[in-house]
Amino acid sequence: MILLLGATGYIGGAFATELQRRGKSFLPLSRKQVDYTRFEPLWEFLRAKQPSFVINCAGFTGKPNVDACELDKAGTLLGNALLPQTIAHACAAAGLPWGHVSSGCIYSGAKFSGAGGIRVEKDLTQPEWHALAEAKSPALQGFTETDPPNFSFRDPPCSFYSGSKALGEEAIAGVGQGYVWRLRIPFDEFDNQRNYLSKVQRYAKVYENVNSISHRADFVKACLDLWERRAPFGTYNVTNPGYVTTRHVVELIAQRLRPDRKFEFWTNDDEFYRVAAKTPRSNCVLDVTKLLAAGVNIRPVEAALDDALTNWKAEK
Amino acid sequence: MILLLGATGYIGGAFATELQRRGKSFLPLSRKQVDYTRFEPLWEFLRAKQPSFVINCAGFTGKPNVDACELDKAGTLLGNALLPQTIAHACAAAGLPWGHVSSGCIYSGAKFSGAGGIRVEKDLTQPEWHALAEAKSPALQGFTETDPPNFSFRDPPCSFYSGSKALGEEAIAGVGQGYVWRLRIPFDEFDNQRNYLSKVQRYAKVYENVNSISHRADFVKACLDLWERRAPFGTYNVTNPGYVTTRHVVELIAQRLRPDRKFEFWTNDDEFYRVAAKTPRSNCVLDVTKLLAAGVNIRPVEAALDDALTNWKAEK
Repeated sequence: MILLLGATGYIGGAFATELQRRGKSFLPLSRKQVDYTRFEPLWEFLRAKQPSFVINCAGFTGKPNVDACELDKAGTLLGNALLPQTIAHACAAAGLPWGHVSSGCIYSGAKFSGAGGIRVEKDLTQPEWHALAEAKSPALQGFTETDPPNFSFRDPPCSFYSGSKALGEEAIAGVGQGYVWRLRIPFDEFDNQRNYLSKVQRYAKVYENVNSISHRADFVKACLDLWERRAPFGTYNVTNPGYVTTRHVVELIAQRLRPDRKFEFWTNDDEFYRVAAKTPRSNCVLDVTKLLAAGVNIRPVEAALDDALTNWKAEK
Repeated sequence: MILLLGATGYIGGAFATELQRRGKSFLPLSRKQVDYTRFEPLWEFLRAKQPSFVINCAGFTGKPNVDACELDKAGTLLGNALLPQTIAHACAAAGLPWGHVSSGCIYSGAKFSGAGGIRVEKDLTQPEWHALAEAKSPALQGFTETDPPNFSFRDPPCSFYSGSKALGEEAIAGVGQGYVWRLRIPFDEFDNQRNYLSKVQRYAKVYENVNSISHRADFVKACLDLWERRAPFGTYNVTNPGYVTTRHVVELIAQRLRPDRKFEFWTNDDEFYRVAAKTPRSNCVLDVTKLLAAGVNIRPVEAALDDALTNWKAEK
């Protein structure tokens, strides 16, 4: 039996669906049933039930967006740093393997392989960088799992959310037998406030940048495949290979969904941060070589986007 | 055998001295010997050595003062929230009792028992409050262990240091068999950069406020007494009973140590925070009824101050 924590959330729900589809027996555990934020009740439960694997999708994301995390620092740290550490310890004490949904939002920008070696550029909205992204230049590279987070408390500025997620990764690194699965900007065909494609359609103005993104069902499949293939424990970037510019996503939405509205963009970062955002946003490109090398199949971002827009199910 | 973590620090050193004085066998453990910031090596060590009690004095205080914590948020949270949680889990897994040095700096101000019931006042530098403090009015009361921290991430503004300490208390509350010992502004006769009496003498200008404070040796004695008396596990304010105004401490220093300098005070909070401090400071009065009710003897703050100044040992 697989134990699923945070099963009612946006990502937890997708794990439940996929586990069911695979015919895997699993137990969604609520905090009401067992307070898994506390070491002893969780450890006791694990010893009694002996799940074959534990999946943690619980965390604190901030509603309606990461700005909310700035206003609840305790909740953010408890959910994203102290909780994963508690689960890591309980799983280690019970000798059980587990996987944790982390975030790629602990990076900013991308890497550029040029004459002088590899250079990190933190803001891809700068025109020359953006041109490289639009041209899909091979010189533009994503961050790998061995690159230290550059949008974190150790490398500010960052949002409190991103700081807490990077700290959570540090807290559980090397503890027991664990996977750290880095999700980035989930999307799929189901209109939802957490869905990137819904967000883009609902923003008053769109914030142009360059990002690797994760199709929600592809993400959970890849995470489960890592475990089923018994890939080495550790950290994996789990996005669809490639990256997209917001402008490209908006064009696709306009062409495919033909919404009634026109899309406007913020003139620049200054305007966006002055008017629409309280805390810095992570925009970044991730490298998924390690995921693919582990034998996991995950379609390119273009195919996943095409699929989501082809099967788009708007909320009423 | 008692296991002592953080034995080389300002408070850890005092625990070592007092344990030696009491003829108790103890083991000071360094992170080089065992990385006690990680669950598994610590748990393994605890199972192998089976100490009778574990004392944690390790933490992140910021040097030369709490402003430094604002610049190392990851270090602050790892040291003050994630580390105590790790130790709590390892002790719980090994079934061992332990004590953690926390801080009273998670409160601001004091309570006032007046006609309309009990009112919390966050800033005692306000004249009418200050007058109550100088008059030692019984209407002025300290925070008890059941009062929620009011200088924390949950009740901002606070310093990042104070936020991390309050979060650490939340993370370990009710886990296993543990004491949380709240220290406040340590002092004694040994001139030291951590000693309140040294700090007051070295500040360019003094910041007037009202505080409960902890004589360093009295603090460690009280902590060990709690354990030796098998007082119920939980949180204890561990300061010398009473409180002092900075002005009173300065007068005592001037009278007793006759330093070559005159003491100037910041005109008001505004000037202090504009010129000398980056992050808010905690100034507060704590109630030690629970400590005394547990049968622990600890002398009033006036006697402890008198002792420290009578035996003052200036650094060359």
